[in-house]
Amino acid sequence: MMKTDPESHQRMTQRRREGHEKKQAAATHEKGLLIVNTGNGKGKSTAAFGMAVRMLGHGMKLGVVQFIKGALHTAERDFLGSVAHCDFVTMGDGYTWNTQNRDGDIATARKGWDEAKRMIESGDYAMVILDELNTVLKYEYLPLDEVLGVIASRAPHVHVVVTGRHAPDALIETADLVTEMRLVKHPYREQGVKAQKGVEF
Amino acid sequence: MMKTDPESHQRMTQRRREGHEKKQAAATHEKGLLIVNTGNGKGKSTAAFGMAVRMLGHGMKLGVVQFIKGALHTAERDFLGSVAHCDFVTMGDGYTWNTQNRDGDIATARKGWDEAKRMIESGDYAMVILDELNTVLKYEYLPLDEVLGVIASRAPHVHVVVTGRHAPDALIETADLVTEMRLVKHPYREQGVKAQKGVEF
Repeated sequence: MMKTDPESHQRMTQRRREGHEKKQAAATHEKGLLIVNTGNGKGKSTAAFGMAVRMLGHGMKLGVVQFIKGALHTAERDFLGSVAHCDFVTMGDGYTWNTQNRDGDIATARKGWDEAKRMIESGDYAMVILDELNTVLKYEYLPLDEVLGVIASRAPHVHVVVTGRHAPDALIETADLVTEMRLVKHPYREQGVKAQKGVEF
Repeated sequence: MMKTDPESHQRMTQRRREGHEKKQAAATHEKGLLIVNTGNGKGKSTAAFGMAVRMLGHGMKLGVVQFIKGALHTAERDFLGSVAHCDFVTMGDGYTWNTQNRDGDIATARKGWDEAKRMIESGDYAMVILDELNTVLKYEYLPLDEVLGVIASRAPHVHVVVTGRHAPDALIETADLVTEMRLVKHPYREQGVKAQKGVEF
């Protein structure tokens, strides 16, 4: 149970504020981050999309390569595609389990990666989002070393965001900020509820 | 290691597609969901914001009550506040550990909850986002039973999204879709990197 009398509440909030201020004071420098959203839960692409809207609101240049078409939905694609300082590229013919053609998937991944590489190496983008790249790496459609090399040698101000289940260990090791979206409960599985407008797409 | 020869790849993707189709066929009905984003990681409010943008893109009516001012940032507030079919209310004087006044916090939580209750009970909103309500419940600024009661007796089409660390067990039990955003790595803590435009705000 939490203590709820006014004095202990004030002491607790005072300690928290001091801790928060100390942490902020120690955080002094800016750098382009490698951000990874992974895990079997929801919100990996949606949280990246939320960051995208925020970047665009600040007028910063954004690049998005969507490696698998199903992950971001029409509403998001239309929105990002309509903003002048956003370059938005969609690769992929839907989820990989629909294509059943490994050579085709590899060629598609390579085309997407060429775009991503160009964006990252140009240094012109404040943020480059590589949506569902983890999935592409898991299936070994692209060489992990090449991807890590390009990310590692980017200009220091460029943020790179990678989403998708099964982030490779080597990517997590290099990353600055890693969040695992963990599925606790899902209505599809447990209640037979279908995908709904606004929630899922 | 994954098998990568074309035949086994095709068999695997075929099986996956069948599983996916079976799952979709079993998911037949629509209902307003109680969605909870919790955990100590990033992306709880950002993913809710991403859903908000999606709802608004579909022209659906959205309500947002922000119980703690710091969780959604100026760019998001300005964006949501500017859309005609979004009612956006901000409560709270910053993070609780800055106020140091329990009675004041309780009064503020009550004002926010009155707005939230009105939105939920009206049935006019396709989605109501209660940003950082978990934090308010953890500090016992609002009676949990009252909150659960209002959510439980809402009209069947209304989605409710609750964000914040420390979601109460009883809320998780009632929820349809629960995601835990788990912190794996954070640059604040480990590298002294400060909050940056577009990434954090």
